[in-house]
Amino acid sequence: MSQSFIDKLKERWSKGNTFVCVGLDPDIEKIPQQCLASDHPLFAFNKAIVDATAEYVCAYKPQIAYYAASGSEEALRLTIEYIHDTYPHIPVILDAKRGDIGSTAQMYAKEAFDRYKADGVTVNPYMGGDTLMPFLERADKGVVILCKTSNPGSGDLQDVRCDGQELYKRVATLAHTQWNTKGNVVLVIGATYPEEIGAIRKITPTIPFLVPGVGAQGGDVQKVIQQGCTSEGDGLIINSSRGIIYASKEDGFADAAGRAAKELRDTINNYR
Amino acid sequence: MSQSFIDKLKERWSKGNTFVCVGLDPDIEKIPQQCLASDHPLFAFNKAIVDATAEYVCAYKPQIAYYAASGSEEALRLTIEYIHDTYPHIPVILDAKRGDIGSTAQMYAKEAFDRYKADGVTVNPYMGGDTLMPFLERADKGVVILCKTSNPGSGDLQDVRCDGQELYKRVATLAHTQWNTKGNVVLVIGATYPEEIGAIRKITPTIPFLVPGVGAQGGDVQKVIQQGCTSEGDGLIINSSRGIIYASKEDGFADAAGRAAKELRDTINNYR
Repeated sequence: MSQSFIDKLKERWSKGNTFVCVGLDPDIEKIPQQCLASDHPLFAFNKAIVDATAEYVCAYKPQIAYYAASGSEEALRLTIEYIHDTYPHIPVILDAKRGDIGSTAQMYAKEAFDRYKADGVTVNPYMGGDTLMPFLERADKGVVILCKTSNPGSGDLQDVRCDGQELYKRVATLAHTQWNTKGNVVLVIGATYPEEIGAIRKITPTIPFLVPGVGAQGGDVQKVIQQGCTSEGDGLIINSSRGIIYASKEDGFADAAGRAAKELRDTINNYR
Repeated sequence: MSQSFIDKLKERWSKGNTFVCVGLDPDIEKIPQQCLASDHPLFAFNKAIVDATAEYVCAYKPQIAYYAASGSEEALRLTIEYIHDTYPHIPVILDAKRGDIGSTAQMYAKEAFDRYKADGVTVNPYMGGDTLMPFLERADKGVVILCKTSNPGSGDLQDVRCDGQELYKRVATLAHTQWNTKGNVVLVIGATYPEEIGAIRKITPTIPFLVPGVGAQGGDVQKVIQQGCTSEGDGLIINSSRGIIYASKEDGFADAAGRAAKELRDTINNYR
């Protein structure tokens, strides 16, 4: 039997000594010319990026919208298969932000875990705990729940004060007290909101955080580490997508991505 | 240029005299044997259902998870294409409940509107108004925003009282005052919560409601009509999925679906 999401993640934190997650969000209009000759250009691009960065990452996170927009489901499937075959110790989180009533959520869980064989998937909590159950009951899979997202408008709903606390804190509290019975929950918290990272770490001392927003979106790595680490000194999956995969658009794009991933790992480790 | 979502919808309400929406959520394990021989079994099933029900509906709503779970993207594409070609006056809402940061939301908008050519798409507001913009700016497309969903756990977040009102009312208020500048917003409110339907109709006198939950989930049609109609006597898209598409699993499944759709239309119209 293959390793669970959380076991893979913890091993990468300890043996790999890295918190870096690379977002595999390839835009057909931005990838280098040389990939376009392939039958599956997005896969050709990803494969080069993965081979150049695997040493430096604790997880990969393909964003399904970048494949779905152009009908490139096969490139997504090939990418995850390639990572499993070549780097079986690195977990893959399918970034899909799914969320629907039970019978439909079951289908989305099949999509993420059975069709694409992802180790984890991102989900949206707006519809309530019952809609997360088809994901949460898969004990070996990571269920990565949106909490306080990195975008400027995330406060429209997430910061509204409800019964004395912001809504995102309620999500963190529900995750900690009700949804994490199998120990497979992760929370999404944007690097652009370091104080909120600290507030959520107080609510849940051990749930890992997936933290996007350190690259193109401008989040501060040092603050993320200070606010988000657990007492064990880990607990973070720090994602960069564009900052790594588009480090260069020239022939040496993969090497440049590798250097950018190494640099982010080292920057993070300097602050630990 | 083809008609906008809202124009198609209004025409079906008036000339078609129907509020019925049929959810095209075909499960490969539940569709009749005779469809399985086709190259695209889910499309073969949908085509038969669509031909039998078109007279009685104001919209179709394929749920993308049922296609994505089994890699049946082509069946979804063929279904929407068939409806556009054969019944161009009936709008198609892609039920996908998407929601992500701007650059990714742009890709999801491409998926729904450019790849699948849907007339509308369902979206999740948890991440905030900026994440809805790539959808909202498509004036000719329907943007169907989750507000108070039909499932038992919808209250976990949606009913939390924030600054004196429930969160779902805040979503309705934002939709009414900020997000509907192009007149293309629809709100999702479950038939299982008729009082909430009435409360939201007070907040927004004219935004159409997509109301799931009258079939298998047990919502009461009469209360939905009483609470949800606008002063014009319309404003509702009442969805049934399983209650219509699986009305019978025998040879005459399409005829049975047609009868079930007609019956729901008539039941609704009796209460108008």
